[in-house]
Amino acid sequence: MASSGLQTKKRDNHNGHFVQPTNPNVATMQEDVLYHFHLSTSTHDLPAMFGDVKFVCVGGSPTRMEAFTKYMAKELGLDHPGAEYPNICVGTDRYVMFKVGPVLSVSHGIGIPSTSVMLHELIKLLYHARCSDVTVIRIGTSGGIGLEPGSVVVTRQAVDASFKPVFEQMVLGKRVVHRTHLDERLAQELMQCGADLREFPTVLGNTMCTSDFYEGQGRLDGALCSYSEKDKQEYLEAAHAAGIRNIEMESSVLAAMCGACGLQVAVVCVTLLNRLEGDQVNSPHEVLVEYQERPQRLVGHFIKKRLAAAGNPRDL
Amino acid sequence: MASSGLQTKKRDNHNGHFVQPTNPNVATMQEDVLYHFHLSTSTHDLPAMFGDVKFVCVGGSPTRMEAFTKYMAKELGLDHPGAEYPNICVGTDRYVMFKVGPVLSVSHGIGIPSTSVMLHELIKLLYHARCSDVTVIRIGTSGGIGLEPGSVVVTRQAVDASFKPVFEQMVLGKRVVHRTHLDERLAQELMQCGADLREFPTVLGNTMCTSDFYEGQGRLDGALCSYSEKDKQEYLEAAHAAGIRNIEMESSVLAAMCGACGLQVAVVCVTLLNRLEGDQVNSPHEVLVEYQERPQRLVGHFIKKRLAAAGNPRDL
Repeated sequence: MASSGLQTKKRDNHNGHFVQPTNPNVATMQEDVLYHFHLSTSTHDLPAMFGDVKFVCVGGSPTRMEAFTKYMAKELGLDHPGAEYPNICVGTDRYVMFKVGPVLSVSHGIGIPSTSVMLHELIKLLYHARCSDVTVIRIGTSGGIGLEPGSVVVTRQAVDASFKPVFEQMVLGKRVVHRTHLDERLAQELMQCGADLREFPTVLGNTMCTSDFYEGQGRLDGALCSYSEKDKQEYLEAAHAAGIRNIEMESSVLAAMCGACGLQVAVVCVTLLNRLEGDQVNSPHEVLVEYQERPQRLVGHFIKKRLAAAGNPRDL
Repeated sequence: MASSGLQTKKRDNHNGHFVQPTNPNVATMQEDVLYHFHLSTSTHDLPAMFGDVKFVCVGGSPTRMEAFTKYMAKELGLDHPGAEYPNICVGTDRYVMFKVGPVLSVSHGIGIPSTSVMLHELIKLLYHARCSDVTVIRIGTSGGIGLEPGSVVVTRQAVDASFKPVFEQMVLGKRVVHRTHLDERLAQELMQCGADLREFPTVLGNTMCTSDFYEGQGRLDGALCSYSEKDKQEYLEAAHAAGIRNIEMESSVLAAMCGACGLQVAVVCVTLLNRLEGDQVNSPHEVLVEYQERPQRLVGHFIKKRLAAAGNPRDL
């Protein structure tokens, strides 16, 4: 491992946008154990393993992130018979991580806390690996509001359950509120990719990020439910009037943390159902599987376009 | 499937404490798709599959929950050469579920939202299966405060980051606060099991439940950190003075939801480090693995004692 002093010097002499934790302590740590990845600066050569990463795609489901890696390998012409894409985090079962070329694929589980743990360690990993100009995209699933199931939503603003573009957390027992920030130009680029493909409806809209799938999203079918169907409908209609087109459970923390650390960030989720018409996810399995591939196809197209425009991935 | 009407009648005529969702809609649903378990009342005979469940053990890590099932099979004399314990939720990668005799073992991932999704579906599963007198125990890992690493904490009260015994959630955009409720007699029974075993220190203490592993727990080694070492130390010392002996990320939602639906509930976590002395989890892998087995051994002993006292598991 290069010393932190050397790393800082190298960063200052470079024109690219390096990934930079806002925590100054990270630069002075002798060893950094990324516990939930089962990686460490003292046992792994992170610059050699990850230095060329330009795109990080994240999603809740481990198998979906593995499937995305195989898909990207084919799309980038990096696949060959017998190729294997081993899970880099094989020493733990908390998250999975795969890499093909400049594309890193990481699972984050369900919800803000699971995603925040992963992001803390991902941002530190990209920093230790001296990565620059990294784009992070969540490819996920969601419930739609007023959209045909299978529609893909590119998020304009990640908002909370009160429709505000903020991420709230408790720090040392006190409530701290951060603005969520997604990259507007990146969202437009992704919308253009949807238009290029013409394979499924793609819309730009606000995404509501909640901390529960049932009561937190106004569902009537959870083990607990403290409101009426009328209350629910009014809430979802108010959300729609506020420009919200889908609901999921991770976008706000992604927007807040990545935005703070110099990463371009976007959220692309498919809608599995129209919440104005029901609560249960009961489409046939094969239909749901095809829906889940849509954000992957859109983001795959985006990555290929970016790489083609750059000519050389190293210049991205 | 028996109709909901029949189920209700049967429940009323029985002396046991049935698992009862507080949401009245569940009783009238024609089909209930437990989406994140990939189970449904129309495709699975839930009473036949789960009707005899008396103990549900939950924990973050899927492999730990599988290991616990194999351990319990041996302890209960239900293991035999070549025995397999298939993952009941094999159709999804969100959670895993294993069963041996009256013991169900389910993973919940990291954090309150991931746990709340699982609990909504678990409580409905136990209701549809007509289970009665069910005890739910979380067997997890945590950071200790002022304890020797490897100590096991049986939770007296699950408190939030302000040290209050509450679970706060957003419902239809409004803040709702629930009391957390853990069973005192059950905690005492578990403490007695620790004393019976004499294998590791077991203490009764309050457990702080946070929504982040880094800033949310006062760590200095995350990608973001907005406070000083002094601020951190003061916070952890105030937590210790409030009776808090460990910090994790799921206890409060477990206490609030299970308590509301007629389930006896407890939390038993091992501490992987002493947070008054550091932030990084950097003990050798084999030491951490042995620590993680301690709550399993304690709860395994508890289950055997309960079963022996009942004579017949059906009378529990």
